[in-house]
Amino acid sequence: MKGGTTSKSLGICRHCRVEEAEIRLNYARLNLCGKCFVKFVERKVARTINEYHMIEKHDRILVAISGGKDSAALLHLIRRIMPDTEVICLHIDLGIKGFSDVCRQKAEELVKYENVELTIVSLEDFLGYRLDELTSRRRRICSLCGLMRRYILNYYGLAYGVTKIATGHNLDDAVAILWDFYIRGDLLEALKFQPVTKLIHPKAIPRIKPLIELTDFELKIYADIKSLPYTLTQCSFGRESKLNRRKKLVESIELMYPAFKHTFLKSHVKRVSPLLSGLTSRSINWKSCSRCGMPSRGDVCSVCRIKKSLKKRG
Amino acid sequence: MKGGTTSKSLGICRHCRVEEAEIRLNYARLNLCGKCFVKFVERKVARTINEYHMIEKHDRILVAISGGKDSAALLHLIRRIMPDTEVICLHIDLGIKGFSDVCRQKAEELVKYENVELTIVSLEDFLGYRLDELTSRRRRICSLCGLMRRYILNYYGLAYGVTKIATGHNLDDAVAILWDFYIRGDLLEALKFQPVTKLIHPKAIPRIKPLIELTDFELKIYADIKSLPYTLTQCSFGRESKLNRRKKLVESIELMYPAFKHTFLKSHVKRVSPLLSGLTSRSINWKSCSRCGMPSRGDVCSVCRIKKSLKKRG
Repeated sequence: MKGGTTSKSLGICRHCRVEEAEIRLNYARLNLCGKCFVKFVERKVARTINEYHMIEKHDRILVAISGGKDSAALLHLIRRIMPDTEVICLHIDLGIKGFSDVCRQKAEELVKYENVELTIVSLEDFLGYRLDELTSRRRRICSLCGLMRRYILNYYGLAYGVTKIATGHNLDDAVAILWDFYIRGDLLEALKFQPVTKLIHPKAIPRIKPLIELTDFELKIYADIKSLPYTLTQCSFGRESKLNRRKKLVESIELMYPAFKHTFLKSHVKRVSPLLSGLTSRSINWKSCSRCGMPSRGDVCSVCRIKKSLKKRG
Repeated sequence: MKGGTTSKSLGICRHCRVEEAEIRLNYARLNLCGKCFVKFVERKVARTINEYHMIEKHDRILVAISGGKDSAALLHLIRRIMPDTEVICLHIDLGIKGFSDVCRQKAEELVKYENVELTIVSLEDFLGYRLDELTSRRRRICSLCGLMRRYILNYYGLAYGVTKIATGHNLDDAVAILWDFYIRGDLLEALKFQPVTKLIHPKAIPRIKPLIELTDFELKIYADIKSLPYTLTQCSFGRESKLNRRKKLVESIELMYPAFKHTFLKSHVKRVSPLLSGLTSRSINWKSCSRCGMPSRGDVCSVCRIKKSLKKRG
């Protein structure tokens, strides 16, 4: 996790001009002390929330808590910035040996620290299988996992009557996800990735990404300064995943093309998306799944098809 | 110039399976002997020319000869692949000390080697100034140079009654040029860069890029095998130019994302351009310059404006 350094020899903090700077943000050429860094992060997230109208007065927010640094920071930041907003926390226990137990424990520590309730849903209860039981059955385990997590969040969001789902996607995630779409020319797929995602379907809860302008590095430092409970353990499937390989690539590009990540995301959201907006609305036609009633591109949604194929194979 | 290696220890040629391979093309994981490499390059260019209908029976082609490896290969390849096509060669002497003389000499050697005529146009005759006299006057010297070269090629193309102008842009150039447009979200600007460029204006000669699918590495090896006269000397302005910095960046990405350059160009031409084609035709409205009659976006074209401002400043 590059993008900056922490050190004691960075001179005076550029914001307060009093304290010793401890954190260097490469993309902004900015040296800050811990206090000013915290303010900087919180102002940035507040600005993102405002700019994209992510959270409004009446909103009830479902926050997806994974056990990692991003969702820990997400919960803490939403509660700091919008203290009056009702927040419901959900953790999905994927059932991956040597990983899910640690994540669950950290999620529990976090909600205790934040003094909020936590609902835990296990993939095994939901699907009949733990994720690591599915490896031999289905090749693309990471995309299956993503699909299941999105479905479960929306499902419980509906059950709890929330108006938005907040996820911890950060700038590094965003650029790593968008990169392949751009290089392969899949611009219509790229367009689906936005700070606020709205499907035009009565059962699709809008999804917000309040951390989308913060880097991996910034979120780790923030979570550390705030002593938030989190784990850096990576899932055994994800460690070698395409997303992680792309994150490394993006990090290397950033070294040669300063502020690449910020420029790329901004271009995507502010220039390419408006340019193409007319083309997308035509291209996606959301139906209701004939089995579960959830948003679907076909007659039966992907999750119901997976459930059926799992039953068949026993 | 990476993208491959030349060596004596590459095993047997993968095409003929007889000769020792001497050339390794990384992106294709292909080891070839010199003869098969030449065939490979010539087949590739023939395919590009056919695929984009670059050269047809009745065409008279103006070939821009810079003195470098790309335009040397371009002239040689067009004459090999389309021996019956009438070719007119033009060299622009930019008047850059320690560079233009070498280029001019190599251009003259090349046409002698190819047994064709060469017209030499000097920027000084055309504009009243050598390029290196303009450095103190105009900051963005590389874009000024590009603008002047495009104008002069079109101007002489009209004078000679050619139907197409062929330039030596290769794959590395293409991706380096496109990169910034994509990262900055300037997709409408990116769309102007195509294997075949047609402006809808009676005085705009269509421009073709027959080498667009060959890398810097491939073209250098081809020019060397064919003993074509060329210089690798770089212009003193261009050496540190944005284009050269981007070429280095693109080369580094290619090391981490195999066949990046080929994938990116293909996506641009085959996916993004068709997707956006409706948007471009609306966005560009070509007029005729009120001074010279050439294609212009405003009432007076950029070259006439530059000429006027140079006169004023004396």
